[in-house]
Parts: sequence; C-alpha cells; structure tokens
Amino acid sequence: MNKIYVVGIGPGAYEKMTIEAAEVLKKCDVIIGYTVYIDLVKDHFPEKEFLSTPMRKEVERCVMAFEEANKGKTVAMICSGDAGVYGMAGLIHEVGKDYPETVVEVIPGVTAAVSGAAVLGAPLIHDFCLISLSDLLTPWETIENRLRAAGKGDFVCCIYNPSSAKRHDYLRKACDILLQYHSEDTVCGIVNNIGRDGETARVLPLRELRETEVDMFTTVFIGNSQTKVIDGKMVTPRGYRNV
Amino acid sequence: MNKIYVVGIGPGAYEKMTIEAAEVLKKCDVIIGYTVYIDLVKDHFPEKEFLSTPMRKEVERCVMAFEEANKGKTVAMICSGDAGVYGMAGLIHEVGKDYPETVVEVIPGVTAAVSGAAVLGAPLIHDFCLISLSDLLTPWETIENRLRAAGKGDFVCCIYNPSSAKRHDYLRKACDILLQYHSEDTVCGIVNNIGRDGETARVLPLRELRETEVDMFTTVFIGNSQTKVIDGKMVTPRGYRNV
Repeated sequence: MNKIYVVGIGPGAYEKMTIEAAEVLKKCDVIIGYTVYIDLVKDHFPEKEFLSTPMRKEVERCVMAFEEANKGKTVAMICSGDAGVYGMAGLIHEVGKDYPETVVEVIPGVTAAVSGAAVLGAPLIHDFCLISLSDLLTPWETIENRLRAAGKGDFVCCIYNPSSAKRHDYLRKACDILLQYHSEDTVCGIVNNIGRDGETARVLPLRELRETEVDMFTTVFIGNSQTKVIDGKMVTPRGYRNV
Repeated sequence: MNKIYVVGIGPGAYEKMTIEAAEVLKKCDVIIGYTVYIDLVKDHFPEKEFLSTPMRKEVERCVMAFEEANKGKTVAMICSGDAGVYGMAGLIHEVGKDYPETVVEVIPGVTAAVSGAAVLGAPLIHDFCLISLSDLLTPWETIENRLRAAGKGDFVCCIYNPSSAKRHDYLRKACDILLQYHSEDTVCGIVNNIGRDGETARVLPLRELRETEVDMFTTVFIGNSQTKVIDGKMVTPRGYRNV
C-alpha cells in the first residue's frame, strides 16, 4: 500500500519534533516540503531525497507527494508546527480523492500557538481561539467577524500570519477591533522565530501592541480580561473563580 | 539555580512526546504529576523518583515541585498534552511568586486538539477555538457566551472536558447552542483515548453528536460551515475561496 505521512516538525529546532516525527523521517524514502522547512531538517537526515515546490504551489506539492508514492516510495510531507493547523493535512486529503490507492497518515506536531505560549509563560491556559490574518483565501470581513466574536467571548486570541508585505497594517486593524471589547491594558505577547535562531519574546499591553511592527515570523497573543503579568511572564488563570 | 521544567508529554504514547521532553525526563531527578500521567511515563524512566498528589490537588502539587527544587533537585512537572493548554504551566507561575530563586521552563507538547485532529483527518486547518465545558472554575454563563461567540464567528470548535459524572448533559447543551448558528448537518468528530490503548474515532453530523454519550477521555470537534467529509475523514478547507 502506498503511504504518505504528513508530518508536523514543530517550530524548527530538531529536539522540538516528536519522537514519532523523527522516526517517520528516518524511515521514509523522500521528504517533500517548502524549502524553508527542508532547510530546517536536512542536516539531520542527510541521506534522504528532498523535493520541493515554491511557496503557494501547495496543490502541486501535494500532487508531487502522491506521484512519488505511486512510484512505491514512502513519502513524508513536512510542515512547520503542526500539519493540521494551517498546514498541509487538509489539502493532502482533498488531492487524495484522486489517489484512492494511497494511505495518508497525519503525524501531529507542536504548533506555534503552543510553542510560543511556552516562551511567553502560560497565556493559553484557558479557552482561546486561533485566527489567521491572511486574507489570501478568506475575505477580510470574515476575519473581522471572527475578531469581534473573539472579543465578545473574552477568548484569549492567538494570531497567526499577523503581517506580510501587502498586509503591514492588519495587526493594527485587528487591535482596533479588539479594543472595542478589551481594555487597552490587556496583557499581550509577541514571539519571533519560535524555537529557531534569533528567538525573541516580549510582553506588552494591547495599546502598545497596536503600535508594534511585526513580521511573518511573529506569533501574537492577546490576553483575556483575566490575563496578568507575573514576573515578566504572560499568564492566564485557569478560570474565573481562582483558587 | 533551582529549576522546574513543566513538561507536556503529549497524548500518552511515548513516541508522541517531543525529543526535548524525553531528554528533560531523562536528566531530571524527580518527576511529579497526577498519577494517571505518571503511569504513562514511568516504564520509560524506571530509575527516577516519582511523586504525586490526588486529582484537584494542583496547588499542592506545585508547592511540592518548588519544595523538591529547593532541596537542589531538578524537577519535571508533567502534564498530558501540552502543559500550557488547560495544564499546570499557569499555576506553576502563580505559585512561583513565593519561590523567586527557582527558574521555571515550559517544555511544549502536543495538545489533544492537535493529536485528535490528526486522527480525524484535518478539522483544524483554519481558524478554530478551544472551549472547555468544565464549570468548576468558570461560570456556565461564560461558557455559554463563548459557545455563542464561536457560533457567530463560524469557528471550528474543539471541546475539552465535554462530560463528567456531574455534567453528563453538558455536550448536549453545547450542541443546542451551536445549532442556533450551524446546520444540523455540520460535520463533527469525536476521538476517545487519543494516542493510548483503545483509541477510537468517529465522524458524525451535529444532530447525532447531540445524542451521543461521551466521557472525560473524549475530545469533540465541531466543524465550521465549510467542513466536509472526504473518504471518511473530517476536513476543513484552508479558507472560503478554495483553490
């Protein structure tokens, strides 16, 4: 039976991968992924065949995975973080409709919300939502609607893709929406290059986050009404009746 | 410097732990955790000292960790899944205010939302929220408000703690709220005992989920308006403009 593993490699550093993910990469014949992710793992698996397609050529990358599997190879399709959170696990299943002879298995990994939270302290201890500010495949109105819902629900918010060359003011727009529901003193945090060289983190109030420039390697955390700063860390309590 | 690692061990199976988590457990002197989590790891680290407190004695467990660290031991406090998602990372920071000489480091792990999603297919590919139905520390009105917000925002919902002996009808109540915003055909999924013996998964429509008995080892996924079934798997597309 042909097999494709869709593998979340975690934030970047080899040791932040699961044992299972490393075992799959050891036993597979070919590793396919976006070049940035290939660069993160290739020194640890020097004997493997590596294949890639450019960014945004995700459908082609999935087709490539099934074509390689059809040659009898065991394929690992890698994603940073987790393959099932804004990753390739969904598209592989969609493209897989045309390849019923191939089995797909998703190997979960540590997504940036979780690895970034560990750097900041414990911002995601209670209910939270993940929102991507990329409007490539989602209308901005839908994203705005979600930000409003997150504000109304007093969810902690973790924001992926907070910025890009074309969307440099999106985080400010998101903060302005959340400021309609949250105090400007709401505890926030940003983490850059999680688990990679040059990792940095900062805890700051929402009013300062609004004025902060971030890039595509930044993950943003916006606290709920209970989130506090303890010894420089961003910490959300376990609920509203604290013991 | 005294040191406590707060370690997410993932869903249960040893290989679903990160390499970093396994290395920390290898090098620490004492492993502290709820007995169910201790049982998951102790065969892999037979030479370690293990300490525990009963369920709900979490503050005492944190104090125990700091007291052990004060004896000069390197301490690992373990949690299932990720330590920062409904885990002990927050409480350790809160209790740590009284122990300024001890450094706390959080080692992230694979939380049930991510590991359960991998079993079901790819339900969390786009924006989602995590909601716990436990009203031990959170008023039910707050939980209801969050479910309404999740419905209004068309978020995929992942539900933790969907049931217990005292809360056997909470999932039904949650489904009734979400049915005010979602079609009764909305694609849902449940996973039991993720990454442990007896793992089972099922994809079903929201109207059936409402009638389904779950237990405290179940993680529940409720799709958004775009979530579909592909070859028996629960798959959410990457957005609303699919390519």
